[in-house]
Amino acid sequence: MIRIYFDYISPYSYLAWVKLAEIAARHRRAVEPVPVLFAAILDARGARGPAEEPARRAYLIKDLLRRAHDLGVPLELPPAHPFNPLFPLRLTSLPMPSEIRHALIDHLFAATWAGGAGITDKKLVGRIAHEVGLPDGALADAETPENKARLKAATDEAIAAGAFGVPTMIADGEMFFGSDSLPHLDRFLAGGDPVDEDLVQRWMSLPAASQRPQATRT
Amino acid sequence: MIRIYFDYISPYSYLAWVKLAEIAARHRRAVEPVPVLFAAILDARGARGPAEEPARRAYLIKDLLRRAHDLGVPLELPPAHPFNPLFPLRLTSLPMPSEIRHALIDHLFAATWAGGAGITDKKLVGRIAHEVGLPDGALADAETPENKARLKAATDEAIAAGAFGVPTMIADGEMFFGSDSLPHLDRFLAGGDPVDEDLVQRWMSLPAASQRPQATRT
Repeated sequence: MIRIYFDYISPYSYLAWVKLAEIAARHRRAVEPVPVLFAAILDARGARGPAEEPARRAYLIKDLLRRAHDLGVPLELPPAHPFNPLFPLRLTSLPMPSEIRHALIDHLFAATWAGGAGITDKKLVGRIAHEVGLPDGALADAETPENKARLKAATDEAIAAGAFGVPTMIADGEMFFGSDSLPHLDRFLAGGDPVDEDLVQRWMSLPAASQRPQATRT
Repeated sequence: MIRIYFDYISPYSYLAWVKLAEIAARHRRAVEPVPVLFAAILDARGARGPAEEPARRAYLIKDLLRRAHDLGVPLELPPAHPFNPLFPLRLTSLPMPSEIRHALIDHLFAATWAGGAGITDKKLVGRIAHEVGLPDGALADAETPENKARLKAATDEAIAAGAFGVPTMIADGEMFFGSDSLPHLDRFLAGGDPVDEDLVQRWMSLPAASQRPQATRT
């Protein structure tokens, strides 16, 4: 099994979602998608998303277009960005059969990053929910306190697992971050991860010979 | 010509420095190395470096080992990290023939990230300076107000050019960030960059349908 923590707001999550299926199939693993609120992960880490730093935002789109091209994944812009992804994330968090959840995620990502009309209009999200076979009550169920708690619990789980952004993939207890880590995940699943654990341990206990002042580290 | 803004503290700068020579040679371009103070770029952006977020720091070493392996670049840990890179950066900022500067950077990076004794001891840095043929007065020259201003001016130039981290490469006015953008730079120089400028312009003028509260965006 490969878990993927993702948020529709993140175009790199979209790239990873589209490509992860191939990798999972190659290694005969199931993909377990876990919707999370990226903004809450950033809050927990006291960090900003790449699109939130003005200097980075201009570069991000070029990086994204290059990576989408490299991966052969179609990419278009959503009608607005950033947008509030809470409702579609909550809808995706509902208990439902795995095939329906995968289809729902496919459709919601496509509506956001592959030329659709976006996912901030509840009517459009409702149409997608209907198309993939969710029952009519799903839209109301998405906003019950019980279901809101599901998204929050999943986000907390991602943070507890060490996630600092999305997409984050976890397989056999090993975490991979970002769409550009997919080849590393693929190699890990094939048994060829070149990481030397002794070096990792030494890194984590390296002395700090200098630190930037706290005030400048936000 | 390809400019590379770098800091010895950054292992991704080391990877990019080692690999950039091949790309530049392939496209018959000269490499113009520009030492900058990464911490000052982060301060200017109100951002933190990847090794400064505790959750990210643990992942960074694995990512680094995987990328070094992919690129075939030897990687070892420095004696301490973070460390203060000011003195070696200032030394590298001195006026000197291009071949000597390249050799100096090769040696200082190797002393940091390829099994050397680090570059925080001025005696060791002095030995490297001597080996690559810098005159005896270079160590004193590195700390004159005039030379300190050179490093600061280069850092300001990087910030003005839009850099938000290191390594940042600029060729023909196009900026590439990170060692993982080297294949994109290579393709750009070959005339095959797939970026659609219309899409970039649309992205930059996209409406924001939601914003995280300022307080949580540090």
